[in-house]
Amino acid sequence: MSNFDFAQLRLVNPYDVAFREARSAVGAGHVLESAQEFSTVAEAVEDCSLVVGTTSAGPRHIEHTMRRLEYGARLIKRHAETARVALLFGSEKFGLSNDDCSYCHWLLRIPTREGHRSMNLGQSVAVCLYELSRDSRAARREPAATRLAPAGDLDRLAGLLIEMLGESGYVNPRTRASTVNKVRRLVRRLNINGRDAEVWTGMLRQIQWQMQHPNEEPVEQT
Amino acid sequence: MSNFDFAQLRLVNPYDVAFREARSAVGAGHVLESAQEFSTVAEAVEDCSLVVGTTSAGPRHIEHTMRRLEYGARLIKRHAETARVALLFGSEKFGLSNDDCSYCHWLLRIPTREGHRSMNLGQSVAVCLYELSRDSRAARREPAATRLAPAGDLDRLAGLLIEMLGESGYVNPRTRASTVNKVRRLVRRLNINGRDAEVWTGMLRQIQWQMQHPNEEPVEQT
Repeated sequence: MSNFDFAQLRLVNPYDVAFREARSAVGAGHVLESAQEFSTVAEAVEDCSLVVGTTSAGPRHIEHTMRRLEYGARLIKRHAETARVALLFGSEKFGLSNDDCSYCHWLLRIPTREGHRSMNLGQSVAVCLYELSRDSRAARREPAATRLAPAGDLDRLAGLLIEMLGESGYVNPRTRASTVNKVRRLVRRLNINGRDAEVWTGMLRQIQWQMQHPNEEPVEQT
Repeated sequence: MSNFDFAQLRLVNPYDVAFREARSAVGAGHVLESAQEFSTVAEAVEDCSLVVGTTSAGPRHIEHTMRRLEYGARLIKRHAETARVALLFGSEKFGLSNDDCSYCHWLLRIPTREGHRSMNLGQSVAVCLYELSRDSRAARREPAATRLAPAGDLDRLAGLLIEMLGESGYVNPRTRASTVNKVRRLVRRLNINGRDAEVWTGMLRQIQWQMQHPNEEPVEQT
């Protein structure tokens, strides 16, 4: 809850031992300290105009509208813009009872595989709250750090490498033109970003210098 | 892993006690039984052509390309169509070291809030594997929801209806509990908005009064 910035925890008849142990959760103290306890589901959700239960979707819940998390989360987010929503989780051992579910407008199911539907409670909560808080627009945004190096930088790098290959005897003068092309393509296929292009160029310059001055002490560069 | 249908678990120097305890995980036996152990990260990821580390994005990892889960998951899914991908998680206590990270092509960060970035290991894994397996097409649009009545209003309405059904002989005392649940569900499936809930309650009260006073003249209400 704290990771995904959900602050209001309401507990219905919490199992005291587990709850007290949880109070030590690093970084989530504010959630646990402000948690409210209720003796019935009805009281816990009284001010919520949408109550959604989570379940592993056994056949007994067929009477309720069941929505996959991907779909249900959108409805919840839209509703939460103007009103209060309760997301109801059952106990680790038994999940939500039929009685609990009867207080829900509809049920939510995490799309787990058919052969292993039931999930750990803490993991279910994390997955649901992640889906509610994730930014779908972020799925299309590439971080700035991966922006590719400009062609000029790649050209300098390829040129330096070609020089060094020439000096080291790798380049056959008769096939020089095709080797040059090959190196240019090799360098571009590396998908080097702007900052890394500088680092590579610096490394190669140092190696070239050492190659050209075999009898001198290496000069440390920073 | 088992919930989201990921089968290949590889462990680098697993903490033996935790690993043995985990072997009891209900429904996930096949994952744990086929888990492989390695003594170095390099060996564990040797056959993977994309290695992605997960981190809570402390400043020390600034040298690596860092991607949000929403974006990174798309790259991983695309890559996994044709080649093997390793998703690398650190230990519960320490996360991934700089050394571990240096084997990664890039790093993945779950979009947790700034003030509480570090997540529980099991929850991180669940969230990442959910994002990798969720079906974005399942989040199709639906008509805008009407503003639903608060649960307290629905409860009063259901309670009134249950009273009337009891008085009218509709409720079989032997199946009373299931009828009560049925009525609660019926009422919630109506998707009654705030104002309609009042109207329904008024209608039912009038009917109930008439039922209880069969020989009196109806009193007109507005």
